[in-house]
Amino acid sequence: MKNLEQNLNTFTAETVETSYIEADGIRFAYRTFGKPSDVPLVFCQRFRGTIDDWDPALINELARERTIILFDNAGIGLSSGETPESFFGTAKYAYAFIRALGLKQVDLLGFSMGGYIAQIVALEHPDLVRRLILAGTGGGTGEGTEAGKPEVFQVAFKPVNVAEDFLYLFFEQTETSRAAGLAYLERLARRKESRAPLVKPESVQAQIKGAGAWRTISTFDRLGEIKQPVLVANGNHDIMIPTVNSYIISQRIPNAQLIIYPDSGHGFLFQYPEMFAEHVNIFLNKNLK
Amino acid sequence: MKNLEQNLNTFTAETVETSYIEADGIRFAYRTFGKPSDVPLVFCQRFRGTIDDWDPALINELARERTIILFDNAGIGLSSGETPESFFGTAKYAYAFIRALGLKQVDLLGFSMGGYIAQIVALEHPDLVRRLILAGTGGGTGEGTEAGKPEVFQVAFKPVNVAEDFLYLFFEQTETSRAAGLAYLERLARRKESRAPLVKPESVQAQIKGAGAWRTISTFDRLGEIKQPVLVANGNHDIMIPTVNSYIISQRIPNAQLIIYPDSGHGFLFQYPEMFAEHVNIFLNKNLK
Repeated sequence: MKNLEQNLNTFTAETVETSYIEADGIRFAYRTFGKPSDVPLVFCQRFRGTIDDWDPALINELARERTIILFDNAGIGLSSGETPESFFGTAKYAYAFIRALGLKQVDLLGFSMGGYIAQIVALEHPDLVRRLILAGTGGGTGEGTEAGKPEVFQVAFKPVNVAEDFLYLFFEQTETSRAAGLAYLERLARRKESRAPLVKPESVQAQIKGAGAWRTISTFDRLGEIKQPVLVANGNHDIMIPTVNSYIISQRIPNAQLIIYPDSGHGFLFQYPEMFAEHVNIFLNKNLK
Repeated sequence: MKNLEQNLNTFTAETVETSYIEADGIRFAYRTFGKPSDVPLVFCQRFRGTIDDWDPALINELARERTIILFDNAGIGLSSGETPESFFGTAKYAYAFIRALGLKQVDLLGFSMGGYIAQIVALEHPDLVRRLILAGTGGGTGEGTEAGKPEVFQVAFKPVNVAEDFLYLFFEQTETSRAAGLAYLERLARRKESRAPLVKPESVQAQIKGAGAWRTISTFDRLGEIKQPVLVANGNHDIMIPTVNSYIISQRIPNAQLIIYPDSGHGFLFQYPEMFAEHVNIFLNKNLK
């Protein structure tokens, strides 16, 4: 993997250079650093998120124990190509990217829509995925699931999202949670070099179409087939993908641990970066079964 | 507190001597050891459990970071007196015991019925309780709660419980969980000195009456008043106090974290003693809000 050796243990989320690799006709942008580990941790990003939207506080903490790989999928941020109108198509590109790096086994952390992508990759390529972390996500529509309210998606789908939108969508409407949200947004601004552009309107529209299709064809009926140990995590008041969905997928996946955080929403992982990193490390390091 | 200094850092759950203290007309048996800490961790035991039923693997691990206090409540094990026919009465005795030790602030860990006791103490004496850990428990009957099935309680209420009953009631019916259950039962047998007798039939009957009363008068409607940070934890398939109850109380308590463990039941904390201890330590050590 290009640049891997020199990046490990030297760089942080704020300073690591952006690398590129070709696969399936896409030039994928990625960043890798952290402690050398046999199994790297690959991150699958949310709706409208780019390689720059991962919290450096979380990523740097996780990088102390393992190799981190962040990337932009097809048509997003610094990567070329078109964003598929189906999450199954996006998952194919995620797989192609990972395989292009020459990796035979990875841990996957998927956040929100990225959690859907990670589930698909784990189901389609069970030998590739060692363990799975599903943050702020569900498994599609099924018994007991709840959808976010229309007014939430009106904000999420706005042409341009401002800071107040993020505080509303990702954090609890308490002083503590909103303050954590502002601190997160400030941390995101720390990186100066080779920043990704905002996700372009046609890619946002493709992702919205993907979300529509996901309501009828998702992983929900296949959750029982996920053989990997899984950590499901969410805030206790997620308005994007309501928290009960995380409880439900943790009950349907055979080997799943669930952690729900207080006073938080969809963006709990950026509100409690150190604690979530500790929980992730315990999960990835321990033999659960 | 008698014997505290000499017991700290010297003894283990298997070797620490049993101490006694008088309060409210009861001679309470207790055991204390562990790392000196400003706020000790006091354990509230389950239905039919005694001071000998805490897993040494869990207790010794927790004792590395804080002072541990195990005790038999009124009419149980090595303590004198009669067991109240109401959990609110049992909670009064728990409070009297803690105050008799001269403690002004404690963390409480309640398991199953002990979780009800811990909730009551936290609600009645908010200044006494710093943080609360509610393991394998619910908050009584309310919207969305589920009761264990009658056949489960037929086993739990048998005059004598054998090892197979514990494996059925506390563990998942998988090879891995049952093996963990057997290992737990073996660890319980390690302690040789001053063991508690089985809970006597009249105390069992009093606890059963308490459980009956709890169906109509519980903490359920007051969960929103619990001001302490709370860690709610359970196995993903608890048949005694079904897992969904843990999810529900974590949603109703204002500042609650929830952790659900895979491949496990009511006795998850004895199946994953090291991991649960790590999670407890993170919870007790961190500023959650």
